[in-house]
Amino acid sequence: MDILTEVAKKAQEDSGVRIHRRNVERLLSAVQQEQDFWKIVDRADLTVPAASSIVKILIEKNLLFIDDKENILLTQAGRDLVEEEGIHIIQDHKCNACDGRGIPFYDDIELYRIFVQIAKDRPEPIQDYDQGAVTPETTISRVLFLDSRGDLRGKEIMVMGAEDDLTGLAVALTRKAKRVVILDIDERLIEFDKNVFKELGIDNAEAMVWDLRNPFPEEWIGAFDVFITDPPETIAAFKAFTGRGISLLKREGCAGYFGLTLRDSSLFRWHNFQKELVSNFGVVITDIVKDFNHYMNWQYHEKTKAAKIAPVKRSPRDIWYRSAWYRIETLPGFKRWNEPISDEVFYLDEEGSTT
Amino acid sequence: MDILTEVAKKAQEDSGVRIHRRNVERLLSAVQQEQDFWKIVDRADLTVPAASSIVKILIEKNLLFIDDKENILLTQAGRDLVEEEGIHIIQDHKCNACDGRGIPFYDDIELYRIFVQIAKDRPEPIQDYDQGAVTPETTISRVLFLDSRGDLRGKEIMVMGAEDDLTGLAVALTRKAKRVVILDIDERLIEFDKNVFKELGIDNAEAMVWDLRNPFPEEWIGAFDVFITDPPETIAAFKAFTGRGISLLKREGCAGYFGLTLRDSSLFRWHNFQKELVSNFGVVITDIVKDFNHYMNWQYHEKTKAAKIAPVKRSPRDIWYRSAWYRIETLPGFKRWNEPISDEVFYLDEEGSTT
Repeated sequence: MDILTEVAKKAQEDSGVRIHRRNVERLLSAVQQEQDFWKIVDRADLTVPAASSIVKILIEKNLLFIDDKENILLTQAGRDLVEEEGIHIIQDHKCNACDGRGIPFYDDIELYRIFVQIAKDRPEPIQDYDQGAVTPETTISRVLFLDSRGDLRGKEIMVMGAEDDLTGLAVALTRKAKRVVILDIDERLIEFDKNVFKELGIDNAEAMVWDLRNPFPEEWIGAFDVFITDPPETIAAFKAFTGRGISLLKREGCAGYFGLTLRDSSLFRWHNFQKELVSNFGVVITDIVKDFNHYMNWQYHEKTKAAKIAPVKRSPRDIWYRSAWYRIETLPGFKRWNEPISDEVFYLDEEGSTT
Repeated sequence: MDILTEVAKKAQEDSGVRIHRRNVERLLSAVQQEQDFWKIVDRADLTVPAASSIVKILIEKNLLFIDDKENILLTQAGRDLVEEEGIHIIQDHKCNACDGRGIPFYDDIELYRIFVQIAKDRPEPIQDYDQGAVTPETTISRVLFLDSRGDLRGKEIMVMGAEDDLTGLAVALTRKAKRVVILDIDERLIEFDKNVFKELGIDNAEAMVWDLRNPFPEEWIGAFDVFITDPPETIAAFKAFTGRGISLLKREGCAGYFGLTLRDSSLFRWHNFQKELVSNFGVVITDIVKDFNHYMNWQYHEKTKAAKIAPVKRSPRDIWYRSAWYRIETLPGFKRWNEPISDEVFYLDEEGSTT
């Protein structure tokens, strides 16, 4: 067995998450460009448990070392290995103008400015609800993405949870949707939105406290054109959130949006999610935009499993947690799902670590 | 039955392709912004047969008319309907810097310049082989996309067909891959590539005439890191092209790239393709970038089925044919497929019209 396969195997045993040879190669690409653990995780497209255990084993094998500033570096043996195996850097050619999203947030600078002014008073993220908000640039880009796909103007839109991102608020601020309903379990966020709507006289948007584990009332089923959510990335929770989202949609040709990371779920998991969407729910995936959503560092980082299992103590200093933006569309015969969800599906499993 | 559902039903009967109410709505969004049939098709995200038959029925119902310059316009009744139904425009917020791709072609302006100089002598596209090249900006963006995903440097890359786009040539021009193999059925293109490689002393790239209906030789199976193709969009051909591409890949964590349009296949078809990829071949979809590939108008347009079934005689005046860029990645247990393909799978079926 070659050394890279051996490392993958050992890392898989240690961490209990699936890891293959190319994951190790990709981490060895990343350490040629980044020294900060959190940036390495991001660039290697790995979950924190996978990256942590690969780094630890590469250190055991004397291929990596951590210096006194907690930088992660290749040893001479590590340098020889990447040379020998032909493991190169991954050169990012991302567009500076739109940060690689394909849609620049400043295309509606008026909306951005108003949003930033309002969001300055937003409630702080708390760990209880798995919160960690995206940047304001992300939120506005989401709204413009909806508009670019015909999913904003004149549409009835449900934003399910994750209102710490204030996506529902931003959709409502455009005043272009026909109706906006915002659900979140966190009363602070709902009160915040309600106050803004009242102050600005926005009367086609409602915000209400809702626990997404509970089924939706009958009058919401088939009553919306678009849903937006940010599901916890366990299989059961993903299925429940997207299934419930799909249950809202009026007919074929309606759309759903959500983010999926590679930080708390692997491509193995994505594969399961995609099967669920395509084969079980009968929807088609129309867009997957990598690294569309940028998350700000949340204040409770030090209390997360991620911080505990990381090979370094140093906290993230920059954005390292990003997620892909998915759009799905219903086709004739799509399946609605609206059952209760048990507590256990939230939030941590073997791949998750940041909640 | 409301009028939009009625139009969808009638259009489906007339054309033999699947059409639902939202397709009609989307076309009515598009005609509020574009008058040219080909631009309307593009903006409505429809196949030519679907768009043609919807337009014809909307004309019968006195909701659209065609003026003496062959512009397609709403009648007063049409205007009343879109008002009443709340059918709005689709405002595109695409990034001007990267044309919405997320990766700007000029991030390697040297490569772009050399490519354009060389490509000026490329052979003309011919209908026999379903040719119609992408713009040089598209080709270079593809190469930079590969580089951004770690699929270029030090990799063994197979480019399967569609070398009228000169994608294989552009990959080879970077001199960053370990090995490039280019297959095409058109001898003119293969000779063209070969001459360039000889002139520039590029010795890690080969080009050879190959009919992709034939299985690959044993020594290619599992010998590549990356494949790129542009499959004809019938289900059988898609399965054969991507299956054969996947058969080339060395192990889990390897990548495949291809374009899929909504001009010659619908989202219904995409749904079938996605099922095939995820459930049958055991790969995961990592990226779907809408409208990444821009095709130049091909000279044989007037001889296509598209031209014959269109409600206007006017040829396209601008880019209207675009496709999404897919990236897939292999997972443990992925399935290789390398059977012969019969002639019948090429090229036209009920949704296709431009070949």
